[in-house]
Amino acid sequence: MCTFKRTRFIPLLITVLSLTLLKASTANDDLKNRVRTYRMANEHAIFQEYFEFLSIPNVASDRENIRRNAAVLKMMMEKRGINTRLLEPPSGNGAPAVYGEIKSRGARRTIVFYAHYDGQPADPSKWIESKPWEPILRTASLEAGGERIPISAYEQEKYPRARIYCRSSSDDKAPIVSMMAALDALRAAKLTPGVNIKFFFDGEEEAGSPNMEAILLAHKDLLKSDGWLIFDGPVHQNGQKLIYYGVRGIITADITIYGATRDLHSGHYGNWAPNPALMMSHLLASMKDEDGRVLVEGFYDGVEPLGEEERAAIARLPEYDKTLMDELNLSATENPGKQLGELIMLPSLTINGISSGFVGTQARTSIPSTATARIDMRLVKGNDPYRQFDRLKEHIRVQGYAIVEHEPKDEERKQYPRLARVTTRGGYKAFRTSMSLPLSRDVFEAIQQVSDRPVVEAPTLGGSVPLSFIPDIFGVPVIGVPIVNHDNNQHSENENLRVQNLWDGIEIVAALMRLR
Amino acid sequence: MCTFKRTRFIPLLITVLSLTLLKASTANDDLKNRVRTYRMANEHAIFQEYFEFLSIPNVASDRENIRRNAAVLKMMMEKRGINTRLLEPPSGNGAPAVYGEIKSRGARRTIVFYAHYDGQPADPSKWIESKPWEPILRTASLEAGGERIPISAYEQEKYPRARIYCRSSSDDKAPIVSMMAALDALRAAKLTPGVNIKFFFDGEEEAGSPNMEAILLAHKDLLKSDGWLIFDGPVHQNGQKLIYYGVRGIITADITIYGATRDLHSGHYGNWAPNPALMMSHLLASMKDEDGRVLVEGFYDGVEPLGEEERAAIARLPEYDKTLMDELNLSATENPGKQLGELIMLPSLTINGISSGFVGTQARTSIPSTATARIDMRLVKGNDPYRQFDRLKEHIRVQGYAIVEHEPKDEERKQYPRLARVTTRGGYKAFRTSMSLPLSRDVFEAIQQVSDRPVVEAPTLGGSVPLSFIPDIFGVPVIGVPIVNHDNNQHSENENLRVQNLWDGIEIVAALMRLR
Repeated sequence: MCTFKRTRFIPLLITVLSLTLLKASTANDDLKNRVRTYRMANEHAIFQEYFEFLSIPNVASDRENIRRNAAVLKMMMEKRGINTRLLEPPSGNGAPAVYGEIKSRGARRTIVFYAHYDGQPADPSKWIESKPWEPILRTASLEAGGERIPISAYEQEKYPRARIYCRSSSDDKAPIVSMMAALDALRAAKLTPGVNIKFFFDGEEEAGSPNMEAILLAHKDLLKSDGWLIFDGPVHQNGQKLIYYGVRGIITADITIYGATRDLHSGHYGNWAPNPALMMSHLLASMKDEDGRVLVEGFYDGVEPLGEEERAAIARLPEYDKTLMDELNLSATENPGKQLGELIMLPSLTINGISSGFVGTQARTSIPSTATARIDMRLVKGNDPYRQFDRLKEHIRVQGYAIVEHEPKDEERKQYPRLARVTTRGGYKAFRTSMSLPLSRDVFEAIQQVSDRPVVEAPTLGGSVPLSFIPDIFGVPVIGVPIVNHDNNQHSENENLRVQNLWDGIEIVAALMRLR
Repeated sequence: MCTFKRTRFIPLLITVLSLTLLKASTANDDLKNRVRTYRMANEHAIFQEYFEFLSIPNVASDRENIRRNAAVLKMMMEKRGINTRLLEPPSGNGAPAVYGEIKSRGARRTIVFYAHYDGQPADPSKWIESKPWEPILRTASLEAGGERIPISAYEQEKYPRARIYCRSSSDDKAPIVSMMAALDALRAAKLTPGVNIKFFFDGEEEAGSPNMEAILLAHKDLLKSDGWLIFDGPVHQNGQKLIYYGVRGIITADITIYGATRDLHSGHYGNWAPNPALMMSHLLASMKDEDGRVLVEGFYDGVEPLGEEERAAIARLPEYDKTLMDELNLSATENPGKQLGELIMLPSLTINGISSGFVGTQARTSIPSTATARIDMRLVKGNDPYRQFDRLKEHIRVQGYAIVEHEPKDEERKQYPRLARVTTRGGYKAFRTSMSLPLSRDVFEAIQQVSDRPVVEAPTLGGSVPLSFIPDIFGVPVIGVPIVNHDNNQHSENENLRVQNLWDGIEIVAALMRLR
């Protein structure tokens, strides 16, 4: 149910009808101006709500806090009159999705607005001047010397480069707050949404959405729609707004290699005892060459070729690699000679972390007893997650390793000179929506009409969103409409949101709510 | 000054003279029995003093606690009437050595008894059922299911496999407590030392003894002697007592490789952004092959060949590799086909630790911005520490890296596709004393005569003791006389001492104090 009570619809409908007599672009200019007027008058209040939401730690595995997030989000929606439900995982184990619905009279389409309210884990020791779940406002980015100011001191004209620092400030609470503010702005402008809206807020996206498919299947009727809009990921690095029609899939692998049953003194046993840190180095080096080419057999097999339309879109992508290299202080990239835009159309293998023994002030002259690495493999259309994982395991076997999935027993350690525990926390495949569908064109035009610069169309986003089962289950298109800045440090320390992206995001959301 | 006041010397001298009329072995049997009788009557009190000493955290860089250790040690010595001094580092920065002296009438020799009172750092999260500096007594090792018992419940016959768990329980406070107990035992038996004793207790050994050479030079006269006995390292793995005539040297290297200035989302930048974790894997793999052969050019150059005497001693070493592999759950070793005893006569390169990004529950799908590794290189006679370090740096350069010693600036990161920070916390060379010197033979016989099994002679210990400057400065022999069990987890979590080794250690120390 929605904020827009039936009794209010009559005058609103008249407004809407009279507006449709104007040209579409005028209508959108008008929409943009009316949303902006509302936002400019309510910035501090928007911050206030946003900061309260950000203050709740939101790692999916932190059961207590993730439920506090769901409860606060439910209240934010109910405050706006949206009838809201928590969709619990049928397994009984996990965070609920937060669901809400707005019915719009005369709507031709029902669109699901998707975002996620959980975030990545955070290492507080790496955050500068604030804690991961302590939102603060700065006059600019940390790198640009931004200084902390109170919300009350914010003025858009004075601080056009202001940023908010907090875990999930970008990924992915910004879109949720944009939706709430867009609803308020439409209401203040006495405008109604043009489509039926179903909100679906995942609470476990950063944990790989282990329950989402089951939740969708359990509520297949409730979640019927004509398409999903995914509010996740960043806009183009050069600041142009962006639409993506697909995402890469992903599967992760955790690898542990075993040496002696205890750490050994490197003096008494160096040259003699096997060193899992060295073994891991050889193993990881065997997986990918120094140019970035993955050496796992069959790794690039089965990739679905790009269509003409997608090739054209890639060719139209703004050239940005040089700027990005400069920004990141890089003098070379992997797969030299190829552009980022092409490279994300291929599967990838990334070492996310290695840990063995101790370094720095904790270092000791020992031979570590284990070495652990974590890898992620991004997948494109045509890759099956578990087939890719099996290829990785086969590669490890070819390097001479016996593979187990459990902590190995003494007998196993005695039996195999090379022993690796290889497990996955699961994964999901990629999806790609056709760029020529009516919904694809309508979304593009809606966003273009609230934008000053050309909107970039990416056939695939480099990142992953665990939503490939949406087209599988519902047979409807899925389109990504990111709003946050690319340099937001998502998944790292000092995650942040450029405030202007929040303001632009509210206008994007409002335009999409006003789709017909 | 000593505990043995002149007035007491007359009857003691008579005893000593009458004892020398007996055969040496009988004299030593008698010494062993008298020391043992004292120890058996005083075990709980010895534990008490030992536990109080162990309870003080003793990482050299922990300035406050390391001085508390020095103060307590000074009191332990003064309680026994030993005139004690703290020898401060001339640099004014570091932990003092604790020095004490016992003069023995008619002594022909002056011997320095060396041990160190500092210990390795410790990660409390890896210690089982106790904290690193919370000494506890167990009925047996953790692996053998040993259970915690109070000191008061200890009986040697009931718990012959008892162990004490605590950082530095073996490395290297056990020898210090053995020396104190041996002095008490001699006094109770109305026996005097046969040599002048100088105690030298280093407070920074695990930090590489950065100040020791300067302290020795500053107190060259005070520390004059006929030889040093180094109480550090473990006895043979099979439990036989051991003497070593040399130690390996060591030099460490800290290596950091740089990628982008911040961690990057592996989806948006995977396949494109350089990954320092992958680069580090390639670099480390290039240093040492999978059989354990070091590939750094010139690494094995300059090693001083072994003499006939040393070859013979190595050939006599007990065969123990198979047992050790079984104990450590290993099915293969580095440098296959060669025995541990031979391999420690060669320089080694060991990865002590690697850290990049995050693994396990902290893992995130990012490309880490840096990767850090710590390496130690053990050195044998003929290796110069800084020449070996330079060879490692040259190897890194040959792999295409520009090397800096500081945290690199943005311009440097932009300039070099491969950039490594390579530093060392210093190191020191190996030493080796001739096995045929009179002191070498006397030490061997003294220990053999308090031992039931043959004493093993090792030309070199695998571990390192930063004492190569002793023969350089004083021109006197340096001999290692370890007392602790080999499976003591020194430098790792759950360090422990087999209680029987402490009892045997008291007898070894007493025999060495009774050298003529």
